[in-house]
Amino acid sequence: MNLNKDFTAAIVIIGNEILSGRTIDKNTSFLAKWLEQKGIVVEEVRVIPDKEKVIIDTVNELRKKFAYVFTTGGIGPTHDDITSESISKMFGQKYQYHPEAYRILEDYYKNQDFNEGRKKMAKMPEHAKLIPNPKTFAAGFYVENVFVLPGVPSILEIMVPYLEKIIKAGKKILSLSIDAGLRESVIADELSKIQDKFPEVDIGSYPYFKDNPGTVLVLRGIDTDIIQKCHSEIDQLIKKYKN
Amino acid sequence: MNLNKDFTAAIVIIGNEILSGRTIDKNTSFLAKWLEQKGIVVEEVRVIPDKEKVIIDTVNELRKKFAYVFTTGGIGPTHDDITSESISKMFGQKYQYHPEAYRILEDYYKNQDFNEGRKKMAKMPEHAKLIPNPKTFAAGFYVENVFVLPGVPSILEIMVPYLEKIIKAGKKILSLSIDAGLRESVIADELSKIQDKFPEVDIGSYPYFKDNPGTVLVLRGIDTDIIQKCHSEIDQLIKKYKN
Repeated sequence: MNLNKDFTAAIVIIGNEILSGRTIDKNTSFLAKWLEQKGIVVEEVRVIPDKEKVIIDTVNELRKKFAYVFTTGGIGPTHDDITSESISKMFGQKYQYHPEAYRILEDYYKNQDFNEGRKKMAKMPEHAKLIPNPKTFAAGFYVENVFVLPGVPSILEIMVPYLEKIIKAGKKILSLSIDAGLRESVIADELSKIQDKFPEVDIGSYPYFKDNPGTVLVLRGIDTDIIQKCHSEIDQLIKKYKN
Repeated sequence: MNLNKDFTAAIVIIGNEILSGRTIDKNTSFLAKWLEQKGIVVEEVRVIPDKEKVIIDTVNELRKKFAYVFTTGGIGPTHDDITSESISKMFGQKYQYHPEAYRILEDYYKNQDFNEGRKKMAKMPEHAKLIPNPKTFAAGFYVENVFVLPGVPSILEIMVPYLEKIIKAGKKILSLSIDAGLRESVIADELSKIQDKFPEVDIGSYPYFKDNPGTVLVLRGIDTDIIQKCHSEIDQLIKKYKN
């Protein structure tokens, strides 16, 4: 499947909790599925620690390589939240209070102490545009093709739909799953020939090893007819070995 | 927390199933926790597609940067399993049958068709050393500091303990979790001062937003006394706001 570079993305997961193994990353799965529906393919994911130089180098490399970069994590009130400042430096923009983001937080915390940590969540690169956060009111933001989102999945998932109008959609990617009910080593040789015959389709082969080991085949592509033809040949292959 | 470069690692997750969001990666969490017990810190994780050039460039970059690189995925029998061949090319080694790996598979498949796909799982870089797989018998391998493991978590988890004697352990990393029961924005300012006071300790702050929002603080370091002192100050901070 060769898609236009215009419809590629990378995800950067920032934070030690994923790297230490303490937390399993769920944001990649949510973002990738959401992007796939918009015809955008995630080409790379990186999980990095909250170290300024690493954040800057990683995002800078990926934003040149892919159409979109999404970061998650590191935009909260604590000392280890350094994403916004790092992204400001990367773009050579001042790291300062965004007036609208500040006003929203000031209002939200009007009956509580609007302390430095809380104010900090309104600091962004000077030309950042906001991504609304209707749950905890600390906005995300974007600059050019870099979208800065929070790390907490329940908040990220509420914010992502606001990107609907900002992100240009590609051709719809069709995806079809077939549970072959056969070990992948049984069908591997012939499956490889089917893949050669249909270069426009990505055939993924994912074995499972539960009570009855088997394989899920996933076909992805943008042309319905070709996917259907490929599907028929795979069905015949499965029938050949199943009985 | 500044650890010796000798005890750093990167993980490379190879496969479209994670990038498409279809599957949530569990191998990072397992590997990172296992490595942490051995005093090795995972400094970066990358998820990449099964494209030869991307595999070669990624692993080559990371093996120079970190003491260990672990890859998962892409060593099965199907057309999309190209990790072993890519790693062979990266090291400039022939991609050929490993006699021992071949013998094990031949024996395992003695009453079944030992087809090309099955044989392929014995192909590796010519100087590869085996990592045993007592579950499905297709071995993993390592060359220098690059360890090639399967993508299926239940198989990977059985194989990783075989690395016990191969990987040099660093100083034990201690980790302590405290559920503050307070929103992180309440304690952020003062927590930052505690972090400044204890540079040898990594204080991670992880908010949660369930019924009662709160924050888990994770202290990591290698010196028990310093961690305990840091812990006491955090306890006092929590008591101050919790009443």
